[in-house]
Amino acid sequence: MDPDAVAKAFVEHYYRTFDSNRPALVSLYQDGSMLTFEGQKFLGPAAIAGKLGSLPFAQCQHDIATVDCQPSGPQGGMLVFVSGSLRTGPDEHPLKFSQMFQLLPAGGSFYVQNDMFRLNYG
Amino acid sequence: MDPDAVAKAFVEHYYRTFDSNRPALVSLYQDGSMLTFEGQKFLGPAAIAGKLGSLPFAQCQHDIATVDCQPSGPQGGMLVFVSGSLRTGPDEHPLKFSQMFQLLPAGGSFYVQNDMFRLNYG
Repeated sequence: MDPDAVAKAFVEHYYRTFDSNRPALVSLYQDGSMLTFEGQKFLGPAAIAGKLGSLPFAQCQHDIATVDCQPSGPQGGMLVFVSGSLRTGPDEHPLKFSQMFQLLPAGGSFYVQNDMFRLNYG
Repeated sequence: MDPDAVAKAFVEHYYRTFDSNRPALVSLYQDGSMLTFEGQKFLGPAAIAGKLGSLPFAQCQHDIATVDCQPSGPQGGMLVFVSGSLRTGPDEHPLKFSQMFQLLPAGGSFYVQNDMFRLNYG
């Protein structure tokens, strides 16, 4: 397994799902998963999906600039660190963001144990 | 232990040391520690200190905008996610950056197991 390839595949899958079928993101989280979104914490798939579903825009387009990856420890996890920009409509200005994930292995795949998102105001 | 307070204290210590006595940062890393700096990976304290010491500016001033923290798993670690700006001289423009750390417990304190840094170009 090439961790950088896994990280890149995860990132492509995550943002493609976010931009095309946001409710499906819930399947990437498990009971102990935590999202920190602009400083607010959400624990578990229901709370996380509730937050993502309540974001005040119907469409979104992420453009990824960088993806970095490191092994996170003996559990076989990975830390994935993303920067990019997002646009919430064709007439909206792009907003820069950073996001980090810890992915942990489960059943031959990975789930998101930790997710932290911040807009980087220009 | 309040994880958010520990994260905030670590962040203050890390950037104050970076800006006033950069060689002393080496003591925050251990043998398996990894730094990814603008996409380049460095493993272990010697390689990490070598990279930090080779950065092409003598002075640096970090200003922290946000600090987010989550527990990272059963090892008792913490994920710390930072955004801010840095200035490499009084006449230089501030540069926005994001950085993430995994801190792991060791001997009543914490060391940096993972460190990923990116400038966020405006």
